[in-house]
Amino acid sequence: MKRNVLIIGAGGVAQVVAHKAAQHNDRLGDLHIASRTVAKAEAIIETVHAKAAMKVPGVFQAHALDAMDTAAVVALIKATGCQIVINVGSPFVNMPVLDACIQAGVAYMDTAIHEDAGKVCEAPPWYGNYEWKRREACKAAGVTAILGVGFDPGVVNAYARVAEGLMDTITSIDIVDINAGSHGKWFSTNFDPEINFREFTGTVYSWQNGAWQSNTMFEVGQTFDMPVVGTQKAYLTGHDEVHSLSARYPQADVRFWMGFGDHYINVFTVLKNLGLLSEQPVKTAEGLEVIPLKVVKAVLPDPASLAPDYTGKTCIGDFVKGTKDGKPVEVLIYNVADHKEAFEEVGSQGISYTAGVPPVAAALLIADGTWDVGAMANVEDMDPAPFINLLNQIGLPTRIKDASSDRLLEF
Amino acid sequence: MKRNVLIIGAGGVAQVVAHKAAQHNDRLGDLHIASRTVAKAEAIIETVHAKAAMKVPGVFQAHALDAMDTAAVVALIKATGCQIVINVGSPFVNMPVLDACIQAGVAYMDTAIHEDAGKVCEAPPWYGNYEWKRREACKAAGVTAILGVGFDPGVVNAYARVAEGLMDTITSIDIVDINAGSHGKWFSTNFDPEINFREFTGTVYSWQNGAWQSNTMFEVGQTFDMPVVGTQKAYLTGHDEVHSLSARYPQADVRFWMGFGDHYINVFTVLKNLGLLSEQPVKTAEGLEVIPLKVVKAVLPDPASLAPDYTGKTCIGDFVKGTKDGKPVEVLIYNVADHKEAFEEVGSQGISYTAGVPPVAAALLIADGTWDVGAMANVEDMDPAPFINLLNQIGLPTRIKDASSDRLLEF
Repeated sequence: MKRNVLIIGAGGVAQVVAHKAAQHNDRLGDLHIASRTVAKAEAIIETVHAKAAMKVPGVFQAHALDAMDTAAVVALIKATGCQIVINVGSPFVNMPVLDACIQAGVAYMDTAIHEDAGKVCEAPPWYGNYEWKRREACKAAGVTAILGVGFDPGVVNAYARVAEGLMDTITSIDIVDINAGSHGKWFSTNFDPEINFREFTGTVYSWQNGAWQSNTMFEVGQTFDMPVVGTQKAYLTGHDEVHSLSARYPQADVRFWMGFGDHYINVFTVLKNLGLLSEQPVKTAEGLEVIPLKVVKAVLPDPASLAPDYTGKTCIGDFVKGTKDGKPVEVLIYNVADHKEAFEEVGSQGISYTAGVPPVAAALLIADGTWDVGAMANVEDMDPAPFINLLNQIGLPTRIKDASSDRLLEF
Repeated sequence: MKRNVLIIGAGGVAQVVAHKAAQHNDRLGDLHIASRTVAKAEAIIETVHAKAAMKVPGVFQAHALDAMDTAAVVALIKATGCQIVINVGSPFVNMPVLDACIQAGVAYMDTAIHEDAGKVCEAPPWYGNYEWKRREACKAAGVTAILGVGFDPGVVNAYARVAEGLMDTITSIDIVDINAGSHGKWFSTNFDPEINFREFTGTVYSWQNGAWQSNTMFEVGQTFDMPVVGTQKAYLTGHDEVHSLSARYPQADVRFWMGFGDHYINVFTVLKNLGLLSEQPVKTAEGLEVIPLKVVKAVLPDPASLAPDYTGKTCIGDFVKGTKDGKPVEVLIYNVADHKEAFEEVGSQGISYTAGVPPVAAALLIADGTWDVGAMANVEDMDPAPFINLLNQIGLPTRIKDASSDRLLEF
């Protein structure tokens, strides 16, 4: 049994985590949120109170924190008495925060793989480059560390684990992430444009035929027939969970597909081909040194500004193929989320919502001991049943579609 | 009879003017070229000597000059003994150079309308805003000043004057400028991207139904069937000569059409809609103030670098409709130029070539007295016959296409 939660970060996903944690503070205890800029953390707490989201009267405090500073993180954990840390800060802070949790002996969670600020688009094995080097340390300290427990990675890893239980062998996992929403702007990224574009300018890795395969972005596209959002074009994209799932299912092809409209691809292609997505500085005729990507970020809408007007739905799921009793079987396990409903509930759009609700579900499962395994784990290493049941109750219902029907998945 | 030519400017058009003037220095006398950066002027003279372009041994000197400084321009005119000034510098220097020519009593030419650096896309009447205010001063001083004597404006104005001689009344003049060449880059503008994009971000003016009409860029498109380059899509664009021609032919519709491929329009549209063509500074997340358009310019190819690989042709001409003896008549008067031939002859691509040859033809006509009218004039005010005959000989042949045939136009 663990209590008291420290949220690290104060962006759109942290906003969702804060609201969802507040809705369950009877089971989670005191809540704390820390950001380099304390005002951002305070602003989130204000929205929590504005929605009267706290289930029971309790603590919700904001703190200034440099999360790159492991000792500072340890000190804050000790000062607040938090036993669960939900790290939804920038991907640059994963390792220092993880180290702090190991030192302090508290549970750790994050929603995206560690990134070195100095390196763009590193080659796999991604978890092997950073987090998995702390497996022994977690085990020795009895520290529960759940890696990548957002939606993708996260819930989609649990979906693969569910499929594992339905088949004798998995032959392919195709994770498809479609945002069929509309933000009403001529163009915008859904999160920080700099991080967004960086993700797509490098090599695309997938796991096929028992080995890493390389492609370029938008090189491999495929149309998927998705529930609710309909037929959608998606493109092979490198993504965290391709690594951990391929480690568990090395015999299977593991691919991640991200939906992009022609408009996004066109804007991306123009900017990339002109050199405007470059991280390397250029010099203007007047002699000013400037990084083009930072200028592109400066002219684009602030993604946080999109939420109030976002309409439409997301659909994210796993198409899993395999064999059962010698026959081919196929299943789609998925969730549909609604941008407007998300905004009305927690003040963020649907993409932040799908990423922010799962770590709170995981925190509840650690709090009651169900997932408090005292070791480092990716989501597919955990029993998916209580996670999916809980998500069904707190805003992210899972459905399963197979040859027989399309129905709510519950255990 | 006037001799000795001062070229102001050292860009791609100045390069063409320098070569063409050198090829006729037996009639033009001493040649001088002045630029703010003297090294650029010197580099042009080097290419003239590398091609052995000087027809007879003679002077060709480079000078450093701030052409915004009228007194400095007067001093250089006097020091060099030049009686003809060809201004192909930036459009910001027209008025100070014109004033210098009036003070010094020498002939003046330019190829584009004056622009105030502080104003973007001014409203018509363009010549009326600046140059035409010096009409009386030119007349009083007996100074010949030929405005806008590039290709468009310039030769296309002479084409309209030719058509005037073929009809009783002109009812419409549609000037069409098609560049069907290929520079082999993913994207490039053909001249300074900053000037190029500025031209298209404002209101598009045309003269129709006896009044100025306003449109936005790419709002009005039309397909034209052009000789040699074939069927091409062009878009209504604001352009200098629409003003002067509509003043001479107020009863006619006067429109300028610029050819753009879908690729150019797409890139332009993306950059404009994202705000990357803005002249207004934005601030990056790191606090750096930067003008997006200047960053776009910095990442695009230097237009001068395109010339060696440029292939294909330009076709620029006037579709003129009117009546003759009570019947409708129609004529197309046009030129076709070749990028590769231009580069081989003078080291510039075809667009610079078509702009740079006409002012040298005009200089030759001023030198021998034919066009030395001792007053300010637009090209359509002058007898077109000697101009077109001379252009036929020096690289820009004119053809005429009417109901009977498509033939060389000569007088």
